[in-house]
Order: sequence, then C-alpha cells, then structure tokens
Amino acid sequence: MPRVKCTIAYDGAKFSGYQVQPNSRTVQEELEKALALIHKGSEIKVTASGRTDAGVHARGQVIHFDTSLAIPDARWPSALNSRLPEDIAVKQAETVPDSFHARFSAAGKEYRYKIYQDQVRDPFNRFYACQSPVKLNTSLMEEAGRQLIGTHDFTSFCSAKTEVEDKVRTITKLEVVEKGEEIELRVAGSGFLYNMVRIITGTLMEAGKGKISPDDISSILAGRDRSLAGKTAPAEGLYLWKVFY
Amino acid sequence: MPRVKCTIAYDGAKFSGYQVQPNSRTVQEELEKALALIHKGSEIKVTASGRTDAGVHARGQVIHFDTSLAIPDARWPSALNSRLPEDIAVKQAETVPDSFHARFSAAGKEYRYKIYQDQVRDPFNRFYACQSPVKLNTSLMEEAGRQLIGTHDFTSFCSAKTEVEDKVRTITKLEVVEKGEEIELRVAGSGFLYNMVRIITGTLMEAGKGKISPDDISSILAGRDRSLAGKTAPAEGLYLWKVFY
Repeated sequence: MPRVKCTIAYDGAKFSGYQVQPNSRTVQEELEKALALIHKGSEIKVTASGRTDAGVHARGQVIHFDTSLAIPDARWPSALNSRLPEDIAVKQAETVPDSFHARFSAAGKEYRYKIYQDQVRDPFNRFYACQSPVKLNTSLMEEAGRQLIGTHDFTSFCSAKTEVEDKVRTITKLEVVEKGEEIELRVAGSGFLYNMVRIITGTLMEAGKGKISPDDISSILAGRDRSLAGKTAPAEGLYLWKVFY
Repeated sequence: MPRVKCTIAYDGAKFSGYQVQPNSRTVQEELEKALALIHKGSEIKVTASGRTDAGVHARGQVIHFDTSLAIPDARWPSALNSRLPEDIAVKQAETVPDSFHARFSAAGKEYRYKIYQDQVRDPFNRFYACQSPVKLNTSLMEEAGRQLIGTHDFTSFCSAKTEVEDKVRTITKLEVVEKGEEIELRVAGSGFLYNMVRIITGTLMEAGKGKISPDDISSILAGRDRSLAGKTAPAEGLYLWKVFY
C-alpha cells in the first residue's frame, strides 16, 4: 500500500489539540473522518510528527497514512481539502517509501511564537498571538535566548509533568525577530519536551522586561527545576512551523 | 453631558454587522450593553461613523456617546474593554465638544482590503482575507485603480439596491500594496456607497487576472450600470481602517 506524506496547516483555536480524545474536536479526528470518506468508510490511521496542545496552531505539521487508492500526489490536497473543515488545510502531499514515518523519521522541528506589544488588547490577535502590555527589550531576549542554543538538560524548561526520562535536547536556532509591534521567536531543534517552547518564551519575556538577566539562564538550566524558569506562555501564540526530515 | 469619542477595533467574523438588529449579535448592541453596565442600567445610545456589514472588520471605527459619568479619557478604554467581548476593543477615547458627531463630522474614510494568493486555502485567513487561487498582476490592478481616483459617479460601483440618490463620490487614494503572497488595497475617500469598496476590489481583481483592461474603467464608470463592474468581493477581506475628521 502506498504511504502518503502530507504537510498540513491548522488554526488551533477551535480544536482540543491534535490528538484524538473522547468528546472533543481534534485535528486527527477530522483528518481521519475525511480519509474515511475518500476510502468509502474504511478506517485510515493518521500518524503525525507529534501532538500539539489545545489552541496551538500549525503551519507545517507533517502526517502520514497508508492508502489502497491510486490518487496522484498533486490530487491529494484538493481531495482532502474538499472534505475537511475550513480550519484545516492540506498544503502538499507526496508518496513516500514505507520506511518513512512522520514521527520517527523527523530530524527536528521549528516552532514560532508570536507576541504583540500593545497596552490595549487586539481583537484580531486573541487566538493568534500573546499580548505583552509592556514593551519588551528584544536585545535582552536575544541575549538570553543565545544561552539556550546548544545541547542542554532542559528539565527547567519543561512541564513538571513531563514523563520522558532523558531531558537533554539540542536547540540549533533561537531568533528574536521584531516587526513593528510584533515579536516572533523562532526556535528550531532536534526535539522538544512538553511545553518547552512556551516555557522558553515565558522566560525570554521575563528577560525582555528586565526581571531576569540573560546571565541567569545558565543557572536556571543548571538548577534542573521547573520553578526556576518563567511562566508557560499561553497556547495561542504558538505555531508548529516546520518539521525537518 | 460630556460627549466621548472612541476609536474601536473589532473582528467582524462573529458579528451580523455593526448595526443593531433583532435576534443577531451586533457590535452596536455589545457596545450599548457594556455602557449600560457602566451606567448602572441606564440606556446609552452609541452612534458610529457608519455601519459595517456582517463579516467586515474594523481597525479604526469611530463612535460617540453622551455620558453622565466623569470618567477621565485615559480610563474609558479599560472601563469598556473589561465589559466587552474579546472580539471588540476600545483603543482610544477622548472627550469632545457636543458639536462632534461620529457620522456627520466625518470628513472621509480609509478602507483596506486583504487578498492572499495561494492555490490552497489558508486556514488562518478564512475570516480575514479573500483567497485568489491565481497570481494577480498588481501593476494592472494599480493602473485600473488610478482611473477611479478623483470625483466620479460611482453608480456602477455600488449595490443595485443602493437607495441614496447622489452617487457622486471622491476617491483620494487607491493604492495596491503587495507583500509576499498578500495584496492590500488601500482606498480613501470622502464617502463610500453601499458595497463600493468590495465592488472596486472585485473589479481590480478582474484587472489583475487580465479579464478586463485598465482602459475599461472609464467606460464602466460612464455606463452607470452595476452589471458592468466586477463581482462584489467577499466581506471577510474588508477592514474599515480609519475615519478622518
């Protein structure tokens, strides 16, 4: 059976996250419903590069599934999009070897986090960016971010509920891009722990307010204690941007 | 009684337009409910620079109301925002003379219309921009737009249902701004007829596809017939950007 890899985008605002769970609207469920329609009711299991939480968006999530149908790659996006709700879109599809696995073949990911600086809330950003009522010093944020690049034990930068044992991860890029009143964090790495990008963001926002110094980052890392880092920034600003294979 | 002028922004996606109508969620109703809460139940009438249709957004709508309360200008935004739903925000407030009227004192308005060019629909733009599956030629759009600048009878560029007699209006600015895959039309003028910006947009999109030539605009204007111009572009791409006084 051919295996198909798709790059998908979704607006996470109205989803209880990516992964199927009872009595909730999820991205995975909508994808599997659309595939069942195409496959005359047969259940098709979809595998993603990883989950995203409720409210988190994706520009470049990657999924794969196996199909009995001989649909050309170029036809898959429109075949699926016509059966998907408007807050999910398949951007691109390609047939891949059976050895490809959306999750296990992933070599890394890039996330982006959007912050807007405005004393008054912006109705257009309520689901799409996190508000900072005060101006943030992006040079300090960048300097703090630089301390996180490289291979570290990120125990302080993941949810205390994280079950995985090995908390060593590698961050290959951490950029702070300012455009007008908007700040975008771009974080790429080999892999990410639960809430890691949101905790990094919350911590860099503290640095941007001058509440912590960039020099504090190394001791926060060394302390291996979630309570040393900043707050978990809200879900609505987070985008799974790209998965690298 | 002091008169207060407010600049407000709203995401039009979940509203049946600005103006109060029975059994519908409207911007005006939400504003009046918030004001009634502040005024201990007294009804406060809100007057806007003009209505916007269902799905149309505002970045710089202007309203006024009269109040018995002595709230300092700087406090009005937060007083109202804490009582307004998240899709409306008061950005700025100031006390104005009684002679100020949000509608009758307005000297002009700027609207913007957002188009994104993508073969595949973008979930993030479904409420906020109009999709063009084909690339548009923005030089042709600009050239067509230039023919509309100035004082003209805009009968061909307003809904056939328009009741107002005098259809002469002045367009002072019509810019076509391209940023990556996005095109923004910026149209300013003394006043606008019903659906005028959306019909101008639909017509310029035809020009951008090469279906009409920029030279056709003068005969479309001269024909004074709605059927000569392009389709009415959808509401979701339209933003009331600024009201001039």
